[in-house]
Amino acid sequence: MCRWIAYSGTPIFLSRVLFDTQHSLIDQSLHSRLGVETTNGDGFGIGWYVPDLDTPAVLRDTGPAWSDRNLHDVAHHVRSGMFFAHIRATTGTAVQQTNCHPFRKDRWLWMHNGAISEYGLLRRDLALAVDPALYAEIEGSTDSELMFYLALTFGLDDDPPTAVARMAGLVEETGRRHGVRNPLQMTVAVADGVRLWVFRYSSERASRSLFVSAEVDALRALHPDVSFLQQVAEDTRLVVSEPLGDLPGAWKEVPESSYGVIQPGLDVFEAFQPR
Amino acid sequence: MCRWIAYSGTPIFLSRVLFDTQHSLIDQSLHSRLGVETTNGDGFGIGWYVPDLDTPAVLRDTGPAWSDRNLHDVAHHVRSGMFFAHIRATTGTAVQQTNCHPFRKDRWLWMHNGAISEYGLLRRDLALAVDPALYAEIEGSTDSELMFYLALTFGLDDDPPTAVARMAGLVEETGRRHGVRNPLQMTVAVADGVRLWVFRYSSERASRSLFVSAEVDALRALHPDVSFLQQVAEDTRLVVSEPLGDLPGAWKEVPESSYGVIQPGLDVFEAFQPR
Amino acid sequence: MCRWIAYSGTPIFLSRVLFDTQHSLIDQSLHSRLGVETTNGDGFGIGWYVPDLDTPAVLRDTGPAWSDRNLHDVAHHVRSGMFFAHIRATTGTAVQQTNCHPFRKDRWLWMHNGAISEYGLLRRDLALAVDPALYAEIEGSTDSELMFYLALTFGLDDDPPTAVARMAGLVEETGRRHGVRNPLQMTVAVADGVRLWVFRYSSERASRSLFVSAEVDALRALHPDVSFLQQVAEDTRLVVSEPLGDLPGAWKEVPESSYGVIQPGLDVFEAFQPR
Amino acid sequence: MCRWIAYSGTPIFLSRVLFDTQHSLIDQSLHSRLGVETTNGDGFGIGWYVPDLDTPAVLRDTGPAWSDRNLHDVAHHVRSGMFFAHIRATTGTAVQQTNCHPFRKDRWLWMHNGAISEYGLLRRDLALAVDPALYAEIEGSTDSELMFYLALTFGLDDDPPTAVARMAGLVEETGRRHGVRNPLQMTVAVADGVRLWVFRYSSERASRSLFVSAEVDALRALHPDVSFLQQVAEDTRLVVSEPLGDLPGAWKEVPESSYGVIQPGLDVFEAFQPR
Repeated sequence: MCRWIAYSGTPIFLSRVLFDTQHSLIDQSLHSRLGVETTNGDGFGIGWYVPDLDTPAVLRDTGPAWSDRNLHDVAHHVRSGMFFAHIRATTGTAVQQTNCHPFRKDRWLWMHNGAISEYGLLRRDLALAVDPALYAEIEGSTDSELMFYLALTFGLDDDPPTAVARMAGLVEETGRRHGVRNPLQMTVAVADGVRLWVFRYSSERASRSLFVSAEVDALRALHPDVSFLQQVAEDTRLVVSEPLGDLPGAWKEVPESSYGVIQPGLDVFEAFQPR
Repeated sequence: MCRWIAYSGTPIFLSRVLFDTQHSLIDQSLHSRLGVETTNGDGFGIGWYVPDLDTPAVLRDTGPAWSDRNLHDVAHHVRSGMFFAHIRATTGTAVQQTNCHPFRKDRWLWMHNGAISEYGLLRRDLALAVDPALYAEIEGSTDSELMFYLALTFGLDDDPPTAVARMAGLVEETGRRHGVRNPLQMTVAVADGVRLWVFRYSSERASRSLFVSAEVDALRALHPDVSFLQQVAEDTRLVVSEPLGDLPGAWKEVPESSYGVIQPGLDVFEAFQPR
Repeated sequence: MCRWIAYSGTPIFLSRVLFDTQHSLIDQSLHSRLGVETTNGDGFGIGWYVPDLDTPAVLRDTGPAWSDRNLHDVAHHVRSGMFFAHIRATTGTAVQQTNCHPFRKDRWLWMHNGAISEYGLLRRDLALAVDPALYAEIEGSTDSELMFYLALTFGLDDDPPTAVARMAGLVEETGRRHGVRNPLQMTVAVADGVRLWVFRYSSERASRSLFVSAEVDALRALHPDVSFLQQVAEDTRLVVSEPLGDLPGAWKEVPESSYGVIQPGLDVFEAFQPR
Repeated sequence: MCRWIAYSGTPIFLSRVLFDTQHSLIDQSLHSRLGVETTNGDGFGIGWYVPDLDTPAVLRDTGPAWSDRNLHDVAHHVRSGMFFAHIRATTGTAVQQTNCHPFRKDRWLWMHNGAISEYGLLRRDLALAVDPALYAEIEGSTDSELMFYLALTFGLDDDPPTAVARMAGLVEETGRRHGVRNPLQMTVAVADGVRLWVFRYSSERASRSLFVSAEVDALRALHPDVSFLQQVAEDTRLVVSEPLGDLPGAWKEVPESSYGVIQPGLDVFEAFQPR
């Protein structure tokens, strides 16, 4: 399994959340508390949006995040208002750059924690469902990338919640056809540079953990001494696999079988149901 | 495109042909004379058979062969009577270990120089033709690995020339269906630890170069001063993308549209025709 | 040997000079025209300054620049008004990140093309001359990094031309003491985020090539159709191992045995003499 | 810190001890029980001797051992009667191949677990003590490699225990001169292809763990059902940072401040005292 962070809000150096927090993503790469594996050392990736550019940047590599100097330097020298970060623990597929998250297609970034059960059994049927015009762009061998291409096939460009619901529905239906009991386990983040969607779902209704940061103004009231909170706008949000620290009241669990839209103005959380 | 070497004969240290020759594979990685590209720096691989083991070993990495210390050391300390070596120049797919040759499946090794034209257009149809039981084992994104899985699908285990002919036939038929003029360009080596098959073919009948070393006893007569020739058995053979040196009479070109079987006893060369 | 580019001027995406030019640095990594080696595939690096940060960022890796996706993405998504880029062809030392340029210490970036002759013979004496307080920070094994630490020892912080002259003087004196005929061959770039110093010198007075771009207003008059020239300020300068294209009048050779200071206002070029 | 294994005895596939044991070195790379760090993911290396060759082979890389396919394949296809394996957890120096163990010089292999305290403070003085004829061959930045070069300087070729004692003595003396309380912490293995020396020592007399396998005939009597024990000669020995399994009676702790010589015939263990 893996750990991930999605950020949306006031532009900051990526290092503020990747390195400078109490239980940072870099710390989680060595000592995850809530993950299935305590070590997430099979590659990492960051993706970030830059004003005026059509596509986000992606930096990925196959070594552990904790010792990667390029990750360290880019995170400390690049500012962004929307970015993803991911550390990987492979469930069997190769440790290679094209299997590292986030995945990118045009303006979209996608990352995933979880797995499709008995993926080897389902992989071909799922790959056949990918839009033939997109199939040739698949570069890696993970379930995560394939889920992204299925969501693209099912209309991610127009309606992300529906596209992800149809992807999840196809995985479950394909799994059941092959006799796989609980085919899907996922927390997913997907963004287009303006909005960020997060999903928490599993066939067995026992999904990997997912947390969203509390409203900034509420946090400011609780913690007037935390300088970081004074510097970010009210609609700044973090969505994370595990809390980055122990600040009381800072993290709210995303409910089982639900999804959220993080956007300027009002965030929305809804129930999630595969189609 | 790429460069490759296949060796069958008296067990020797791999370095004897990879490093110690006049125009060695390592030299070719920087200065290929006959290749489409002069630099082959997008990864490399070696595969070798070990007596009493069911599967060959593979060592592959993504950097240039010329500076790789692990390749250097393994080649200088491992002896084998049948081995492959390959240096890669990508035609677009990712530089990653799972795209490096040779590919392995059970006792088989496979490597390729060439390309499927407009591979992006044909990739999905070709992938669908792979035996569903094998599909999930595809790890990379190259045409070369897919050609291997197609040959496995078409009976490589039983009859390599027929399996490769059916693979080539499928590529050409799929290409023509999509309006691709000359779909296939290939020199291929495949081995099972006992025999070695080599193929030279292209749809346009202008295939990449391929050479086989002359009979050892003939070479000994021509070059009584070359000590290496005294030490290897008469059925030792090298098949190469480019000659490894200028020894007169040492290399015979494999004819256009043909294949050969290198085996203990008599080698056989035949015409090759896609089915 | 190696190839390098130093940029100072209007903030631009690094890709504008690394990727988008006619004979770009990426192209030079495969097909250098003026370098000692045509292939520069033994690692690469970029360094860039960010407003309000004390130290520049560095991204370095050991593979060839031409296929590195992280380099591609960072260069296309990061803007800077002062940056370095370097592609490496090793003269023998290990292909590792700590041997890749640019080297960084506090606010300084340093990169080099050339070599200290018989470096193995001189390395220890040169290393002993490094300030003991700095010695432990040496991470790699190149002559280039050691030259940087010698320049730091000799007062780079206060007076770069003098510090580099004393470094060069020490290399020549040490070389002569060991009977090395022409100990030093170098083109060096060093920057502190505000100013950029470039040096061209060799003991034999036959230094590697070095070029500086012409005044922007003169170029505009010559080439009113080149849009890039309309967008950058008049004091924008590139210093390069080889010209990035064939624009007539665009490149002036830096004279043998000289150095230049690229800075806001007037650039200065002077004779260079080791001390 | 790190974990290591040294093997001397009946030639076997390296995988037998690296992969196939209950608490194998690969398992230790993720879940060390006795190490200072539970994760040893900052590179790995193996070194092995080959009959009739003057120098051993070394395979080293910078990623975690647990996912490295080249390590897997070489270990499963190479047989040796004397080999080293090491997994690294950096104490600060760069994650690069030249910092990975084992280190090699001519016929010697060297590996280390532990650290020189305040190495940055002592590094220069220790480097100056290296034979000037050897200094230029230092490629990495670790204390471990420097300890090797000091042992070579102090006569490793002639008398390993004395050379290591003088190295340890120099480290302690240099440390005390700089006010470092407990300068040295080490378990070291060094071999020449015929004999294997192992050392356990620390200035504070609280050294990292080290175990040697029991006599094979005693083990056979205790465990007649363990097939592996029937296949190896009586003088086969393993020396390890942590036991590879829970076989009762299989492992004897190497005493504090001692060293051993593993050799054909009688092993010798003696007290170790820095000089």
